[in-house]
Order: sequence, then structure tokens, then C-alpha cells
Amino acid sequence: MAIILGIDPGSVKTGFGIIKVDGNRHEYVTSGVIRLPITEDLPARLKVIHDSLQEIIQTYSPRFVAVEQVFMAKSAGSALKLGQARGAAIVACVTSGLEVAEYSALQIKQAVVGTGAAKKEQVQHMVKVLLKLPAVPQEDAADALGAAICHANTRSGLLNLSGVTSIRRGRMR
Amino acid sequence: MAIILGIDPGSVKTGFGIIKVDGNRHEYVTSGVIRLPITEDLPARLKVIHDSLQEIIQTYSPRFVAVEQVFMAKSAGSALKLGQARGAAIVACVTSGLEVAEYSALQIKQAVVGTGAAKKEQVQHMVKVLLKLPAVPQEDAADALGAAICHANTRSGLLNLSGVTSIRRGRMR
Repeated sequence: MAIILGIDPGSVKTGFGIIKVDGNRHEYVTSGVIRLPITEDLPARLKVIHDSLQEIIQTYSPRFVAVEQVFMAKSAGSALKLGQARGAAIVACVTSGLEVAEYSALQIKQAVVGTGAAKKEQVQHMVKVLLKLPAVPQEDAADALGAAICHANTRSGLLNLSGVTSIRRGRMR
Repeated sequence: MAIILGIDPGSVKTGFGIIKVDGNRHEYVTSGVIRLPITEDLPARLKVIHDSLQEIIQTYSPRFVAVEQVFMAKSAGSALKLGQARGAAIVACVTSGLEVAEYSALQIKQAVVGTGAAKKEQVQHMVKVLLKLPAVPQEDAADALGAAICHANTRSGLLNLSGVTSIRRGRMR
């Protein structure tokens, strides 16, 4: 049994989702969105991401963290903001002693829907189905849960969950 | 008397510089460059930035932190990497209870050289002169020291140093 935290970092909202994995069974634990105080300055906003995630980590004690990898952003400006949010989120996890695995959007779509060409709505729908949720979770929370499901479903993830080996970045060591 | 930490975050090297300010007197304390292990994955690299800066903060107990503000990067890819490094660096400071002020390159050049049109080499030269250094410091360290000098020299910075008021983002509160 392993608890996985998925994170979808963003400069306005950061989604998170926690699932419990036991063999092939995925169980929903919690999910939500950390809304950043847009009236505050950058350091204060990054502190909110960091502190909120550390609180979530302390409360639910996940063993693994999965974050969506970003290859391209719309513009240099939005990439900088997204990068700052990712940096704050990842630091919150590594300073808590957690291993952080990054998965591409393609890997997450493949793991959740079965095809890398899946649309956002299909990912959200399958997250609802796979975790037996009463309704489709909020977009950022669904993306975070998708990353967590991806970590559980990838071969390396499964190996790691069963304690066969340790992984980082989805690769076996 | 106040100790100011200047940081020049980067995804390959992160410069830092510490100065001691007493009225109009600036005294060099230390500076250097945190080199990131490029063979490691992103979470491990961000942890190096975070942990190194927290160690520096614990060792020198700065009261203020100044970071160069970034408006534009060369590309979305480099902006994302820079953003992640900035996020890790800023989180290391705010979780240590420090206020982080951001200054534009223009503000730093004006504060150090006296003109916003100054070239990089002029900033480095003036950092050497102002801090009475035997040689020009390494580029990233010089930029970090420049940010620290800028914080000390700005009106809001001076007000803050003398305990008249508290500032954030260079604005009086």
C-alpha cells in the first residue's frame, strides 16, 4: 500500500490530489486547489504554495510525489511564473524527504485514458471513473490526481510500490 | 547595521553575495556561486539551491534579501528553468522568515553604477570599487552583490535599514 501525492503547479492555482494504491486498486483520499493570494507579492505567493503543500504532506504522509513535466509554455512570461510555482512546489516535497517523479502530459494521458491523444475532458472523466468519484473533480485537482494515477500505473511506479527497486524520474536504478 | 543577502538565481549556477551595511558604509562579507549538479534530476538540483541558501542564511543571519527581478527571458524554455531556480531560492528565504525584495536590472544598475544603461562589466567593476575588493568577483556573485547594494542604497531600503518603516517589494507600507 502506498500513498501518492500528485501536484499540478500553477502561478494562480496549484492543484493537488492524493490517492492510496494497493496492488491494482486505486482509492481516492483527497484533492483540492491551493488558490494563491494575487494581491500579495511573489515571495508571499510562493510561500503559500510551499506551506500548503508541506501541511498536506504532514497530514497525509504520502510516499511518492508525481508532478506533470512541462516542456513548453505559451510565452516566456508565463513560463517564468509557472517555473517559480513549480520550484516552490518541488522544494516543498524534496525538503520533506520525498522523491519527486516528473511525468509528461503524454505519459499521464496514456496512463489515465489509454491514449496520449486524449483531451483534457477525457482525462477528467477517467479520473472520476478510476477513482469512483461522484462527480468530475475541478480541473487542476483532476490533473493532479491524473499525475498520481500515472505514477501508480507506470511500470517503474508499480515496481517501486511493491518495493522491488527504487526509482527516480520514472527510471529504475 | 544590517546584513543583506543578494541572490542571482540561475538553473546552472546561483550567485550569492552578503554585505554588511552601517549607515552609508558597505562592507563585503562573502560571496560565491552555488553550482548545480547537472547530472542530477530537477528536484535534486532545486534541493541544492534551497539547502545551500538555507545554510548561508543560518551562517550569516542576513536581515534582508534582494533578488533581481526578471521580466523577460530569451525563450519559454529558459524562462521555465530560471523560474524553477528562482522559486527554490525565494522559498529558501521566505521559509527562513526573511523578507525578499525584488529589484529590476535597471534599478540595480542605477544603484551600483549610477545609470540604468550601464553594461555588465561596469556593474562588476563598481561592485569591486564600492566593496573595496582586491579583484572583480565572479559574474553571478557580482550580480548578487549588486542586488544587495541596490537594496541598501534605495530610499526604501535605507528607510527600512534605519528601522523607520517596513517595506516589501521596495514599497513603503
